[in-house]
Amino acid sequence: MRIVQKYGGTSVGSVARIHAVADRIIALRQAGQEVAVVVSAMGDSTDRLVELAREVCAQPDARELDALLATGEMVSTALLAMALCNAGCRARSWNALQMPLETTGPAGRARIARVGCDGLKRDLAEDVVPVVAGFQGRAENGDLTTIGRGGSDTTAVALAVALDADECQILTDVDGVYTTDPRMVPEARRLPTVSFEEMLELAGQGSRVLHLRSVEFAARHGMRLRVLSSFEPGPGTLICEENPNVEAPVVCGIAFNRDEAAISLTQVPDEAGVAHALLAPVAAASIEVDMIVIAAPRGGRVDLTFTVHRDDYARALELARNAAAKYAGAAVTVDDRVAKLAIVGSGMRSHAGVAAKLFATLADEGIQVRLVSTSEIKVSVLVAEKDLERGVRALHAAFGLDRAQP
Amino acid sequence: MRIVQKYGGTSVGSVARIHAVADRIIALRQAGQEVAVVVSAMGDSTDRLVELAREVCAQPDARELDALLATGEMVSTALLAMALCNAGCRARSWNALQMPLETTGPAGRARIARVGCDGLKRDLAEDVVPVVAGFQGRAENGDLTTIGRGGSDTTAVALAVALDADECQILTDVDGVYTTDPRMVPEARRLPTVSFEEMLELAGQGSRVLHLRSVEFAARHGMRLRVLSSFEPGPGTLICEENPNVEAPVVCGIAFNRDEAAISLTQVPDEAGVAHALLAPVAAASIEVDMIVIAAPRGGRVDLTFTVHRDDYARALELARNAAAKYAGAAVTVDDRVAKLAIVGSGMRSHAGVAAKLFATLADEGIQVRLVSTSEIKVSVLVAEKDLERGVRALHAAFGLDRAQP
Repeated sequence: MRIVQKYGGTSVGSVARIHAVADRIIALRQAGQEVAVVVSAMGDSTDRLVELAREVCAQPDARELDALLATGEMVSTALLAMALCNAGCRARSWNALQMPLETTGPAGRARIARVGCDGLKRDLAEDVVPVVAGFQGRAENGDLTTIGRGGSDTTAVALAVALDADECQILTDVDGVYTTDPRMVPEARRLPTVSFEEMLELAGQGSRVLHLRSVEFAARHGMRLRVLSSFEPGPGTLICEENPNVEAPVVCGIAFNRDEAAISLTQVPDEAGVAHALLAPVAAASIEVDMIVIAAPRGGRVDLTFTVHRDDYARALELARNAAAKYAGAAVTVDDRVAKLAIVGSGMRSHAGVAAKLFATLADEGIQVRLVSTSEIKVSVLVAEKDLERGVRALHAAFGLDRAQP
Repeated sequence: MRIVQKYGGTSVGSVARIHAVADRIIALRQAGQEVAVVVSAMGDSTDRLVELAREVCAQPDARELDALLATGEMVSTALLAMALCNAGCRARSWNALQMPLETTGPAGRARIARVGCDGLKRDLAEDVVPVVAGFQGRAENGDLTTIGRGGSDTTAVALAVALDADECQILTDVDGVYTTDPRMVPEARRLPTVSFEEMLELAGQGSRVLHLRSVEFAARHGMRLRVLSSFEPGPGTLICEENPNVEAPVVCGIAFNRDEAAISLTQVPDEAGVAHALLAPVAAASIEVDMIVIAAPRGGRVDLTFTVHRDDYARALELARNAAAKYAGAAVTVDDRVAKLAIVGSGMRSHAGVAAKLFATLADEGIQVRLVSTSEIKVSVLVAEKDLERGVRALHAAFGLDRAQP
């Protein structure tokens, strides 16, 4: 079996942990597996590099910030390759320029376009473990780029696809995907398997186990993904195509996200293209918009609300105000103390009443729902930040997530 | 004028110093100069990376150690480019893979083969300051390499040659080349100019202002080199071709090197090729041999003594012992408490009696000379380490180096 393993920053956070990772890789190879490895930067070293850049200037040049941050993964790949070599396992570090791992798009938020892996395949054929720097890429013009925080997961999946691996394993500091965050709900259970779609909704809603893009990428290519603890043994959670022969549980988990901010544009003329005119500048600034809700028009006017990450709030607000200023009578209202929670499950498709149960449960708790957005396998609601924890606990119990499912 | 400036680790050792370097570059550009910059890693960051590697294992894989160390210069180039951009001066960092700066030879001791500078020329044409990572290269197979400690000086000269620059300036923590180390001899004077040949002898003898290879490289290509303080204003020392119209002072300086170890092979058969047989294994191990003296043969046997850096002493000794074992009767004796001093000057060529004066001065001080080696413009002697300082002071006075020369 050919496996791509990705070790996060915590897993390679110290020299001792790097040795532990090396041991784990060697054990896997001794069990007859072919292994390629992707690593993140050690511990908080990316944060420290960002801090260093901020000491130089408040708004570091984006190209240079990427060049700086990419060094973090170069350090951890070299150290892990050394540890492997020292333990008698041939290994070779690879950075994005060497592979090359080609990206498109802006610095800091580049997207993987092509994974050059001839060298890695040669390594595997020669019994060498390739150790690849996650998170980084090479732009068309040769610049070093980064593919966004958490992007090492995406690097791992892209590499697994390019190498035609049997499985992509994400080793992290949790031992799998849970019905919800166990730090908030002690009854939360590890899910043995979860479908790509469910994982996408869970990850997209703020389950911080896996980076959203990595799941999308895996789903698009049908690459089996497994989340494992890098510290403890265990099967983790397998994320794969849904098995059509098995009836999925109605709800598999509850995701939530504290870091939301809602921006409402009210009394906007109900014209074709107005939503685009309002949101296009936000999208052009590469700000990710999460929920978008347009209320039913009244008197030729509509209200449009969207949510963004709290980090992007100030910038998005400015853009929204500029856009709204073009429409007489339109106004902008904001709320940056909101949180989102979402129930997710493939089984929802065939079960009516999931949303009803959600609303009833929240109403019983006296929690006001400010915004609702639904998909085939998810219902998301925006609530006041202070109500979040109570809401998640109540829903976890109401949907029976604390009990093992058949 | 097109200038390549190289800033050493001390010069970019903190964020404040990086800003000072940026200011200096901007001032030069405002004075109408075209500038390309080479930087070393910040302060002691290379040492810290070496330490980190040693924590992972005692003998880190050479390829991976190079990959690790190369990150130090990538950090400083990105930060300096950020500082320049922030101050309104367009700048772009370049690492060895991006240029590419091609090298040959073993990891850790690679040599520059070709400087790809199309991108840098484009930068200069577009009024962008290219900021190049010193010390690193790209092997033919795409590996990151390093060109040896202090190699950033060589990077700077190679870049100056490739860019056809008018001058290569090495900015460091001293304000020029001195007649000898002022920390040992307070009367030491800064030399306004020195010839390549003299500088080669001074650098090769342990004057730590400039890396030997950088001077060789500059001499070979006739590139004017200037050593300047990065902290204080001043003209520094210009190193260039000798002006044939000006009579050079007899002696321009005294170099010394504390870190020598002498290995003697005695009673070796006086056969053709025996010196090669003895020294070839040492050279093959990439250990730099400094002085080599073969005494006049007696009774069909000769004594061969060579000196190496004290770091290489144990390895060189083992190789010498293996080589000597092939000759019955040969023995190996060692002395690792020796130091070398050398008087250097182009004027020696036309003045007899320089060596005589050297020996007389040392004899007056009661200093025993263990080994002598001469070149056209240099006389080197090996003395006991404890005699070094006294010898240097006496010679500095004897050759009138404390007095300004015409």
